Amino acid sequence: MTEHASDKAGQWMRGGGPDQDVVLSSRVRLARNLAGYPFVGRADTNQRRDLLERCRMSIARADITPGLHWVDLNDASSLDRKLLVERHLISRQHSKATSPRAVAISEDESIAVMINEEDHVRLQVLRTGMQLQDAYDQADVVDDVLERQLDFAFSSQLGYLTACPTNVGTGIRVSVMLHLPGLKLTGEIDKVRRAAKDMHLAVRGFYGEGTEAVGDLFQISNQTTLGKSEGQILFDFQDVVIPQIVEYERKARRALADHRATVLDDKVFRAWGTLSTARLLGSEEALYLLSYLRLGLCLDRIDSVSMQNVNELMLLIQSAHLQKIAARPLGGPERREFRARFVRERLGA
Amino acid sequence: MTEHASDKAGQWMRGGGPDQDVVLSSRVRLARNLAGYPFVGRADTNQRRDLLERCRMSIARADITPGLHWVDLNDASSLDRKLLVERHLISRQHSKATSPRAVAISEDESIAVMINEEDHVRLQVLRTGMQLQDAYDQADVVDDVLERQLDFAFSSQLGYLTACPTNVGTGIRVSVMLHLPGLKLTGEIDKVRRAAKDMHLAVRGFYGEGTEAVGDLFQISNQTTLGKSEGQILFDFQDVVIPQIVEYERKARRALADHRATVLDDKVFRAWGTLSTARLLGSEEALYLLSYLRLGLCLDRIDSVSMQNVNELMLLIQSAHLQKIAARPLGGPERREFRARFVRERLGA
Repeated sequence: MTEHASDKAGQWMRGGGPDQDVVLSSRVRLARNLAGYPFVGRADTNQRRDLLERCRMSIARADITPGLHWVDLNDASSLDRKLLVERHLISRQHSKATSPRAVAISEDESIAVMINEEDHVRLQVLRTGMQLQDAYDQADVVDDVLERQLDFAFSSQLGYLTACPTNVGTGIRVSVMLHLPGLKLTGEIDKVRRAAKDMHLAVRGFYGEGTEAVGDLFQISNQTTLGKSEGQILFDFQDVVIPQIVEYERKARRALADHRATVLDDKVFRAWGTLSTARLLGSEEALYLLSYLRLGLCLDRIDSVSMQNVNELMLLIQSAHLQKIAARPLGGPERREFRARFVRERLGA
Repeated sequence: MTEHASDKAGQWMRGGGPDQDVVLSSRVRLARNLAGYPFVGRADTNQRRDLLERCRMSIARADITPGLHWVDLNDASSLDRKLLVERHLISRQHSKATSPRAVAISEDESIAVMINEEDHVRLQVLRTGMQLQDAYDQADVVDDVLERQLDFAFSSQLGYLTACPTNVGTGIRVSVMLHLPGLKLTGEIDKVRRAAKDMHLAVRGFYGEGTEAVGDLFQISNQTTLGKSEGQILFDFQDVVIPQIVEYERKARRALADHRATVLDDKVFRAWGTLSTARLLGSEEALYLLSYLRLGLCLDRIDSVSMQNVNELMLLIQSAHLQKIAARPLGGPERREFRARFVRERLGA
């Protein structure tokens, strides 16, 4: 997987899908633990190894479509692990750990099952655009198939038991990656941040937990999973909260196009100009410029590039991807040079 | 003059001439005062009016080639006066004063004679590239012709008498406009500033006295005129000091091209990218980007534009010029928009 796919993005990141002007992708994650074992943080190496082997055999036996490819992270190179992080298929912590751990990934990268991360099993389903229900439905199917093979720790009172109390209950976390350049440019983004906080939502950057929002990409997710059914959590998020933010962003974009078209075009075309000419390009600057290009595409201000191209570039300009594409390690300055050339070529500049 | 020439630069600014890679232009200025009158600062309005009239008639009678066109600054609009400042034909103070004053300018703008600025008569000759001797020779001829009509205050002991003691003696000031992006990029520019200070040279920005160097353009001039002959001043400046700086800049450029070509190209091509795409452009940013473009041309890194085009743009992007070209007053945001469009058109982008 990590060998052949580094120069294109997973299906979920290529754009398309409902509300794709604002919603890049949808994600549903389920946290599960095997009964009869301590949580990962309290398990010793033998227990972890045992857990890993049980999961590997179960997944191999399970009838999951599309089929999953097993990646033992202790056998994976540091660069391959970094690539998986950049593709949002494993967490940073999972990449950096040293104990027995793995991830099982479907060919199209829509499904990823981390083994021995914070929980024994963390199943994620990714979809392009606003497709949370779809993602949940698939996660539910895979969860059922896995549950036929594995005995998940479940309390009739609390629901699924998880290592961290915030996941107890349904063990579900739903999140969307939003592109909010309109709200950023109109200065309303902080209002959204505050509102999200009031609604107990977590707001993170493109690069996940602990990262700042770069390129106006914001990952928004629910924080509590106890006391609500999966259906209620999904409905609140998908049908109430996110549509409001999406509409708010669209309104900001329309206001920009209607009343500040020159300021908007200045950002969009400068972004195009810099991306097509730079000889050295850092990843943050690239993402920030691609964000404006994407905004320009959504508002029909520019047509020199396709949306899929821009969406893919947002992923591919990351360090591990570039080194995979170059097929060799690249130090900082060399990487910035390679990134600039790669972007120019992709943009046909 | 101010009506038809606002969309092109004076001959001296179009580029060309010796050492044009580093020396944009050469200037010689002579300060003279009429015997029998107080200096301008001490003259009353009637005396200034009288001085103005005497100079006007003398210049009209004098056999000066190319012929001079008289501009009474009290009759000129504020925009026209600003245009003359931007073209380096009058000083900022001369533009802003309200008392009787004028400037006589040759069609090609190589000669400008300010009347009633700090001195009664300030004669300037401008040349493209490194042509100080040439500029001096012409200034000397015009000075002689004027002296046949006007009785200049002269002391056998001190030389020409001037309002400010720093000009007493020869009354000469020689200056060059240097483009020093290489020394700026290699961080050696401060050494040059210090060395210039040690040699009693004044270093100013493109926009003249009291302005910071923008776009790596530095105006360097001698500071003292007493105790040295014109020939000595010229020789020291033209044959000793400036050639050293020019060589120093060329060395810095070669070092950049040889050892930091990617950093260099990044600056040059980004400048091109931004200038050809921006929809809003401030004058300082434009000058700064044109400076990199000029560097790229000098080092054969880019060929999408001609040197004359870039040199002219450095002048034409200024506010008064843009408003003359637009043939209407332009407020700040509108001006930035007009500037961006004008630059794009000139660059054929």
